[in-house]
Amino acid sequence: MRTLLLAFSAVMLALAGLSAPLNAQEPLEKTGELPPLYRAEMDLAEGFVSDMMASGVVVPVPADPGGGYTHEQHKRNYRAIYLAGQLYRITGDRAYADYVRDMLLAYAELYPTLGEHPAKANQNVGRLFWQVLNDAVWLVHAVQGYADVRDTLSAADRAAIDDRVFRRAAHFLSVESQATFDRIHNHATWATAGVGMTGYLLDDRDMVDRALLGSDKTGNTGFLRQTELLFSPDGYYTEGPYYQRYALMPFMVFADAIARNDPERGIFAHRDGILLKALRTTIQLTYGGYFFPFNDAIRDKSLNTDELYHGVAIAYAETRDPGLLAIADWQGRTILTEDGLLLARDLAAGTPQPFDFRTLLLRDGPEGDRGAVAILRDGKGPDHLALVAKNTSQGMGHGHFDKLSWQLYDNGHEIVRDYGAARFLNVVAKEGGRYLPENESWAKQTVAHNALVVNGTSHFGGDADLADRHAPRQLHFSSVPGLQLSSARIDTAYPDNPVAMQRTLALVDVAGLASPVVIDVLRATGETANTYDLPLHYAGHIIETGFVVDRELAGRRVLGNSHGYQHIWVDGTARVQSDGAFMTWLLGGRFYSYRMAAQPDLQVILGESGANDPAFNLRREPLVIQRVEGAKETTFVSLLEPHGMSDGATEQTVDSQSLIASLQHRKYNGYDLVIVETKRGGKTVLAISNDTDPDKQHRANIDGRMVRWTGFAERIDLAGEKN
Amino acid sequence: MRTLLLAFSAVMLALAGLSAPLNAQEPLEKTGELPPLYRAEMDLAEGFVSDMMASGVVVPVPADPGGGYTHEQHKRNYRAIYLAGQLYRITGDRAYADYVRDMLLAYAELYPTLGEHPAKANQNVGRLFWQVLNDAVWLVHAVQGYADVRDTLSAADRAAIDDRVFRRAAHFLSVESQATFDRIHNHATWATAGVGMTGYLLDDRDMVDRALLGSDKTGNTGFLRQTELLFSPDGYYTEGPYYQRYALMPFMVFADAIARNDPERGIFAHRDGILLKALRTTIQLTYGGYFFPFNDAIRDKSLNTDELYHGVAIAYAETRDPGLLAIADWQGRTILTEDGLLLARDLAAGTPQPFDFRTLLLRDGPEGDRGAVAILRDGKGPDHLALVAKNTSQGMGHGHFDKLSWQLYDNGHEIVRDYGAARFLNVVAKEGGRYLPENESWAKQTVAHNALVVNGTSHFGGDADLADRHAPRQLHFSSVPGLQLSSARIDTAYPDNPVAMQRTLALVDVAGLASPVVIDVLRATGETANTYDLPLHYAGHIIETGFVVDRELAGRRVLGNSHGYQHIWVDGTARVQSDGAFMTWLLGGRFYSYRMAAQPDLQVILGESGANDPAFNLRREPLVIQRVEGAKETTFVSLLEPHGMSDGATEQTVDSQSLIASLQHRKYNGYDLVIVETKRGGKTVLAISNDTDPDKQHRANIDGRMVRWTGFAERIDLAGEKN
Ligand SMILES: [Zn+2]
Ligand SMILES: [Zn+2]
Repeated sequence: MRTLLLAFSAVMLALAGLSAPLNAQEPLEKTGELPPLYRAEMDLAEGFVSDMMASGVVVPVPADPGGGYTHEQHKRNYRAIYLAGQLYRITGDRAYADYVRDMLLAYAELYPTLGEHPAKANQNVGRLFWQVLNDAVWLVHAVQGYADVRDTLSAADRAAIDDRVFRRAAHFLSVESQATFDRIHNHATWATAGVGMTGYLLDDRDMVDRALLGSDKTGNTGFLRQTELLFSPDGYYTEGPYYQRYALMPFMVFADAIARNDPERGIFAHRDGILLKALRTTIQLTYGGYFFPFNDAIRDKSLNTDELYHGVAIAYAETRDPGLLAIADWQGRTILTEDGLLLARDLAAGTPQPFDFRTLLLRDGPEGDRGAVAILRDGKGPDHLALVAKNTSQGMGHGHFDKLSWQLYDNGHEIVRDYGAARFLNVVAKEGGRYLPENESWAKQTVAHNALVVNGTSHFGGDADLADRHAPRQLHFSSVPGLQLSSARIDTAYPDNPVAMQRTLALVDVAGLASPVVIDVLRATGETANTYDLPLHYAGHIIETGFVVDRELAGRRVLGNSHGYQHIWVDGTARVQSDGAFMTWLLGGRFYSYRMAAQPDLQVILGESGANDPAFNLRREPLVIQRVEGAKETTFVSLLEPHGMSDGATEQTVDSQSLIASLQHRKYNGYDLVIVETKRGGKTVLAISNDTDPDKQHRANIDGRMVRWTGFAERIDLAGEKN
Repeated sequence: MRTLLLAFSAVMLALAGLSAPLNAQEPLEKTGELPPLYRAEMDLAEGFVSDMMASGVVVPVPADPGGGYTHEQHKRNYRAIYLAGQLYRITGDRAYADYVRDMLLAYAELYPTLGEHPAKANQNVGRLFWQVLNDAVWLVHAVQGYADVRDTLSAADRAAIDDRVFRRAAHFLSVESQATFDRIHNHATWATAGVGMTGYLLDDRDMVDRALLGSDKTGNTGFLRQTELLFSPDGYYTEGPYYQRYALMPFMVFADAIARNDPERGIFAHRDGILLKALRTTIQLTYGGYFFPFNDAIRDKSLNTDELYHGVAIAYAETRDPGLLAIADWQGRTILTEDGLLLARDLAAGTPQPFDFRTLLLRDGPEGDRGAVAILRDGKGPDHLALVAKNTSQGMGHGHFDKLSWQLYDNGHEIVRDYGAARFLNVVAKEGGRYLPENESWAKQTVAHNALVVNGTSHFGGDADLADRHAPRQLHFSSVPGLQLSSARIDTAYPDNPVAMQRTLALVDVAGLASPVVIDVLRATGETANTYDLPLHYAGHIIETGFVVDRELAGRRVLGNSHGYQHIWVDGTARVQSDGAFMTWLLGGRFYSYRMAAQPDLQVILGESGANDPAFNLRREPLVIQRVEGAKETTFVSLLEPHGMSDGATEQTVDSQSLIASLQHRKYNGYDLVIVETKRGGKTVLAISNDTDPDKQHRANIDGRMVRWTGFAERIDLAGEKN
């Protein structure tokens, strides 16, 4: 029994250890109580840093653009400074501190010799990197590593590094690059964070105040103002999730530093807790861990990113929200700060609750009145159904001309797609990793989105400045059992030949169907005879079309010559005159049928992206376009139905064909009535009043039957014979 | 301490329980010792069977083809009979036995009324299903379920089911469908298994003997002969892995029954243990769990399939090979037999050893002289590099015209692809789930493979009968550190205008590169001026080409009009006159550069599959073709180099550009000398004598330096200046 007793004691000691306070004197590691996630993170850091230490200090004269050797080496260096500093703090091993010192002394030699980076591409040129942004990121990391070892340095080394690296870098970012520093923009957030944290470390109040309040210290610019202007009241960052993720890191890291150094500022409570709200919103803007790829987004960005390891750990330390533990568990990563240690400990102590992914509306704009993102979710977990209606404003220079566009996720896959950016990050042969020409000519254009195109021209004629001056209006958002619905409108997307667009997107339960369906009602009202195109960028292999396609079999023409149309190959066209306007595709073992309500002269164009792409910069992905020509107004009513499954392992295929018999649209009194009939005879109506008065009562006659509802919209079940 | 002591005793009891013999009297469940995998399998079975029981016995009159309602219902029924029988054996719950009885009594009503299935598509028509094969599968499952409950039945019920279902089904398969039954073909394996197992159950020796020895009981056909003729001495099934997997189930299940009923036959030792060898070979024919998609393969078939749950459990019970436990662990599934229980117990008892995936040669043909599959593997685990050289014979009706084709897997992905079959299994809208027209016009054609096409014509002119009469010859296969190599030859693929083809494929270490590279030397020797096309079907997004492509930007023509060329869109063409003939693509975060040695008038054609595809039956996938026109002979020398990485999470990109400076090919004395120079100056030579004498010594002069080697080929490191 002796062994068992000893084991028992060890367990009790370990349990006691878990709640023991941190010993500030003793290096953390000596206390022998590191939870697995934190220990794994240390191992990763030790692996990286020991490789770096083995290669010696390599601080090259800057030469290359993004992806090139000197670019990547300086990135490796700031990671090494940052991590080696933390490892010194944790282990007390002087070798780490000495390495950080030697590295920073090498920078102290180099930095004062630098002028503009030779790979300068625009006016925002950096010193160590081709753009000033990367210099700011370098500073944010390096100053943290330096903080961990600064006390170990000789006075001479400290002075050399303080003056020749950090003061100079801060001066470069805040004075020499003042135009960037004083912007309300994520580049400025990185710059203010770097400068402010340097100020805290060097006890330079002037530096801190300029970071917090802008160069003129009025608060019209600077970090605090950024927290007010860059996020909406719902914590949405106007450039979209990809940049939100990126922007969040300096916000969270600098806020953490402010909270420690200037606790009286209550930074995390500032503006109703906007930073913590923004962190949660960032997570809500994902499916399967991947960000919705709005605007200039790199599609492989997920929550598995350094920015979110920091964000989640810092927010957890502030809030103890157990859902954040689930996110950290999914990430399988954290950071080596005290916040990371706390998170890793609490995660080790039990199974986390799932993060609360839910249906919600995220308003855009500092005042929340510049459109919104509406997220409609059905179900839970990795296979749930999520509809994303992008009714936001343009989102500045990285915005796309995609007003009232949408996406759909289901069964772990993106079903209705957003292209994201045309860019191969850090890939030298792809223009040094910068945005490619096709980002302008395709990725930003309206036809590259699930959005209405009028007369073959992108929204705002593709003018980003004009686009930034107008935003959609979110008319309605609601969620009740059986019906989740968003409706938004914009009248200004075509200023020269005005077209009012209103789009209602809903997840609607249909009696007899296992999954809700998407109903999409897009009204376009112009003043002259226009051509209206409504593209749908789907993912999957076509299984069946309910219309006869006039195929382009032996040669493939291009659909147009500008506004993105030059990038579309035509696979075929169809005229649709009956209710047979559906097509079915297969993705990830599930079938999807897209059904288009009949309307006069409705054409369907099947195509694929990738034409006029000399350098093979585009992905080749299918799309379908509904087209109505020569009409002043039109209403596109579409339905997307997930159905059935095809399982390769069991060779079982179920419901590979649509379960819906027909989709009809009736206009009546300004109402839109959408009638869905299933093959088994069930009939479901989505009745939309288009009236935002929540209490107003409405009624309409459908085939002799009166239906009544209240407010903007309701789902009405007209029981069928065999239902 | 009392609690601890009690817990300890419980553990000891549990451990004792693990090795206790099965109690044959008591239902298994009552013994309370079911390991997790087995218990989970029971839960799955209970879920399925209780749903089926809740719907009542539904035995419809056969009407629909594959994927249709009656087809799927009869499939559900045989699964229910099979699983309910097992659940009765395990739980002793009479409800299961009664359900099997009721179901089989319904079949006893239906079966005698059946003639040819109305959805007959060819002469192999079934009764319950559109083809006799499915009837055989039904019988194999149903007879096992029936065996578990037969003792519980009244004499009248037993007689009704024996006579009106099983004897009739066995008669239908073995007498009325004798032509199928006596084939040497997987359809016949299912039929003989069903009939033989029925014979064991009904104690009908005649039935058993016809199953084992063929209708005439001479042994010229029947199950035993099938084990001799359908597998090569290395356990390779000539139709390829997809059908090997499928064929294996009746082989293993019937063999298990033979071993229990006729142990003196030593079935598992028959022909040097061919069935167990075949099971292991089936697993070797996978990457990441998915089968190499040779011939008419459905690409989403993996080891996660019912056939392999049976195969692995039965083989484990015979061999106790711990690698099979790892496979079962990956599958996360087993079967509810005693074999499955044993496997689940041993898996629960400890961590399995990995299955020994390795470099190996699998000869084709009953005598092992009809070509081979050579599998060259580098590394271990899910990301390892695997080159597959398909030098097999045609493989009967499901074979493709793909002589000396190859595939490459790396980093968890298929890099050099095989299309598999053009078929959507069980999808009604895709011709009822049958093979599509494009399976003949594209998937089977030579140009749809990584194989040499002469004068735009497929091997054997696309004549399957002719193809079956000729096979390649495996000249050489070897594996030493730094060089794994396969070489094969066929002279008969173009009988009317003979062209001898020899292909050497090797994984070669190159000094300074982290991963081995593929070197591909394809010699074609004809008698007249021919056009030689060598396609490579790669997967990934083009990053860079080392040649100027004359792009087809604003219209896309089709490459040809027959033998698969009518399905290829042309993206562009290039003339290659220097060493700059490379292209780089990105897949799964890794870069791949394909480099083609210069030769006179080498053209490159970039294209994509999907032209002339009226019903959208084809996938759209890229390919590159090397073309030499008007030459009697040519040697294509190519190199495929995996390099670098691009990690979205860390935004790190490393070595996105090829690390190789040049690829040269010298012919000398019948030798092929392939010289690879890296950008850092390292030089590696692959010296191929093309002489199968293992002891013969060879030498050649390379730029004034004499290199010497012995046997077929060697890798020689010519140290570079900066290496
Ligand atoms: Zn976009
Ligand atoms: Zn094939």
